[in-house]
Amino acid sequence: MTQHVDGLEKFYGIIPAGGIGSRLWPLSRADAPKFLHDLTGSGSTLLRATWDRLAPLVGDDRIMVVTGRAHRAAVEEQLPDLSDPNIVLESEPRESSAAIGLAAAILERREPGVIIGSFAADHVITDQHGFRRAVVEAVAAAEAGYIATIGITPSEPAIGFGYIHCHGRLDIDSSPSALKADAFVEKPDIATATKYLESGNYLWNGGMFIARASVLLKQLGESEPELLAGLTELAESWDTPNRGAVVDRVWPGLKKIAIDYTVAEPAAAAGRLAVIPGDFGWDDVGDFAAIAKILSGGRRSDLAILGENARVLADSSSGVVVSQTSRLISLIGVTDIVVVDTEDALLVTTSANAQRVKSVVDALKLSGQGDVL
Amino acid sequence: MTQHVDGLEKFYGIIPAGGIGSRLWPLSRADAPKFLHDLTGSGSTLLRATWDRLAPLVGDDRIMVVTGRAHRAAVEEQLPDLSDPNIVLESEPRESSAAIGLAAAILERREPGVIIGSFAADHVITDQHGFRRAVVEAVAAAEAGYIATIGITPSEPAIGFGYIHCHGRLDIDSSPSALKADAFVEKPDIATATKYLESGNYLWNGGMFIARASVLLKQLGESEPELLAGLTELAESWDTPNRGAVVDRVWPGLKKIAIDYTVAEPAAAAGRLAVIPGDFGWDDVGDFAAIAKILSGGRRSDLAILGENARVLADSSSGVVVSQTSRLISLIGVTDIVVVDTEDALLVTTSANAQRVKSVVDALKLSGQGDVL
Repeated sequence: MTQHVDGLEKFYGIIPAGGIGSRLWPLSRADAPKFLHDLTGSGSTLLRATWDRLAPLVGDDRIMVVTGRAHRAAVEEQLPDLSDPNIVLESEPRESSAAIGLAAAILERREPGVIIGSFAADHVITDQHGFRRAVVEAVAAAEAGYIATIGITPSEPAIGFGYIHCHGRLDIDSSPSALKADAFVEKPDIATATKYLESGNYLWNGGMFIARASVLLKQLGESEPELLAGLTELAESWDTPNRGAVVDRVWPGLKKIAIDYTVAEPAAAAGRLAVIPGDFGWDDVGDFAAIAKILSGGRRSDLAILGENARVLADSSSGVVVSQTSRLISLIGVTDIVVVDTEDALLVTTSANAQRVKSVVDALKLSGQGDVL
Repeated sequence: MTQHVDGLEKFYGIIPAGGIGSRLWPLSRADAPKFLHDLTGSGSTLLRATWDRLAPLVGDDRIMVVTGRAHRAAVEEQLPDLSDPNIVLESEPRESSAAIGLAAAILERREPGVIIGSFAADHVITDQHGFRRAVVEAVAAAEAGYIATIGITPSEPAIGFGYIHCHGRLDIDSSPSALKADAFVEKPDIATATKYLESGNYLWNGGMFIARASVLLKQLGESEPELLAGLTELAESWDTPNRGAVVDRVWPGLKKIAIDYTVAEPAAAAGRLAVIPGDFGWDDVGDFAAIAKILSGGRRSDLAILGENARVLADSSSGVVVSQTSRLISLIGVTDIVVVDTEDALLVTTSANAQRVKSVVDALKLSGQGDVL
C-alpha cells in the first residue's frame, strides 16, 4: 500500500518500539514488552495498532521501526508490511534520543528534507480522525521550521503523565491551533495536577515529536554534540557494508538520554517548539489502573477483563483481571482489585497501588528472582 | 504399635473422613478433599494429624476409618498402619449417621461392649495433652452409660460453629467435669455469639461423640429405626462374603442425616448426653479466614503463607496465601486478602468474605464449569 494524505508527502513515521513497561509486570516482560500486548481488548497489539494509525497517513513504505534485536521476529510477525530497510535494530537499549535520532539521521540521508514524526509503539488512541487532524497540523508546523509536539487536552488531573505549559498561539498560517510552549513539567502530585487542569494552560506530554529531520538533529546536536556525531557516523554507514562494524563500535558508547531533555525542552526554551492540542482519547497505558479505565470506558464499578481465554467468576467485585492462562479466576468481595494471572507469576494489587508495581520489579531484580522478569 | 492408655482399654477410635470442604475451594476438591491437605503448615495432612492424636491413646490397631471408595488409595498412603479390616469404604456419601453408625455396628459385632469415639478427619487441635484429658473423661462418662461429647470452650464469638447450651454438672464420679446439655444451637449471628460467650454457658460443638457402641446405636434407632435396621444388616454381613451384595442393596437407600440430629440432640433432650469441656485449641478449619488465623497464631496484621514451594513477595499486604504451584505471587497494598493459587483455579477474596466461597462453588456447578471442582 503506497498512499499518503495531502500535506504529508514529505512525512515519514518513526515508531520507537522499546521499553518493557515494568509497571505492567507480570504481563510485560523483557521478552514480551508492553508494545507486543493487546491491552485494550481490540485484538491488536499496541504496536500493530500504532502501525494501523500511521499507515493510512503515510503509506506502509514510509514507516520506520526502531526496536531491540531480541524483538525482531515478533515485530516482523506483527508488521508483515514493514520493509527490511525500515527496521532499525538496537544491539542494546540506548534511550529515545539515540533511537529516534538514528532513525532521523538515516532517513535524512536517504531523503534530504524529510519530515519525521515519532509515535510510541505502546500508547492508545481512540479517535483516529482527531489524531490525523493533529498530525496534519503538526507536519505543517514542522514545514514552517518548528519542532512540533502534540499536547493532549487533559480529561482529568492525571498524576501519571508529564505536562506541557503553553502560553498563547504561534502565528503559523498552516497550523492555526499551534501554541507556544514554555516548559515541560514532570508528573505532578494530585493537588498540582488539579491546579493544572483548572488553569486550562497545561496539556499532557504525549511524547509525539514531529519535525524536519534536519531540524531535530540540529537541536539534538546543540544539546549533545557527541551523541549527534555518533548518530551521524552510524547513519553514514547504515546503508553500506560497514554498518555492522560501526554499530558495534559506536552504538554502545552513545549517551542514554530521553529526547525530552535533548530536543523538546531546549526547543521550548528557544521558542522553536510548536504544541498542537489534541483531544482524541490518548493514554500511555502506564499501569493497570489505566488498563482498568480503558477497558471499563471510565466506569468505576465494573470488572474489566482482558484475556482471550479468560474464565472469570466475580461476586461483588470490581477492578481488572488480566488473564494469560486458561485458569478459572474467582473473585469474591474484592473492589478496585487488580489481578494479573500469567503462567509463572501472579500479581494481586489495587488500582490505587498500580504505580507501585515497578518497585516490585526492582525488588525481584535484587532478590534473585529475575526468572519471572 | 499396640498400646493404650489406662481407662481406654475398651475404646476404639473412628475417623469419618468425608466431606469435600467446599468453603476451602479451590484447595479442597472432590478428588482432593480437605482432610487430605496440610492446612496448618505442620507437614501433615489433617487426616494424618488426626491419626497421630488418636494412635497414642488407643493403638494403631484400634482406629477405624470410614471414607469414600475414591479416597482409598490416598487414605492408605497417609495411614500405612491402618489395617485392612479397619477401613470402611462408602460406595457413595450418606452423611455422618450412616458413616459413624456403620462403624459402631461393625465394631460392636466384632467386640461387644466396645466404646467408640468419633473424631472428624479434618479438624485441628493444638494441645494434645488437653485433648487426651478430655477423651479420658468422655470415655469414663461413656462407661457410665452416657453419650458423651467434647464441648470446646469458646475463645471468641465465632459465627462459624454450632454451640451446645449446658446447665450444671452431671454427677459422674469418674468424669468430674461432665456437664448436662439441654440444647444444640446452629451457627449464630455475631450478636448472639457474643451473648453466648458472655453467658459462659455455651460451648462449641466440636462434633466429637464418645459412647458405648450399643448405646449410640440404640439412640440412633429411637430416632431412625429404618436406618438402624439397614446398618445392622450391613454390619452382620460385613465380615462375610456377602458384604458386597448387601452394600450394593442397602447402602444407597440409607437416609442421609447428620448424627447431631439422630443421636446428639435426642440424647441431650433425654438427659443422656454428657458434655466434657475441652480447652485445647480446636478449630474445624471451615474457611480460609480460619486458616489465616491458625497460621498467623491469631495476629491480624501478618501475611500467612501455606505452600511447600510458595514464592510470595508482599508489599504492605496482609492475609493468607495458599500456594499449590511454583508461580511467584506478588501482593501490593492488599489487606486481609485471601489468595489461593492452584494449577487450574485461582481464588481472590478477603477474610471477611471467606464464608461466601461455598456460594461460588455452587455457582460453578450450575454454570457448567465443574471441571475445577
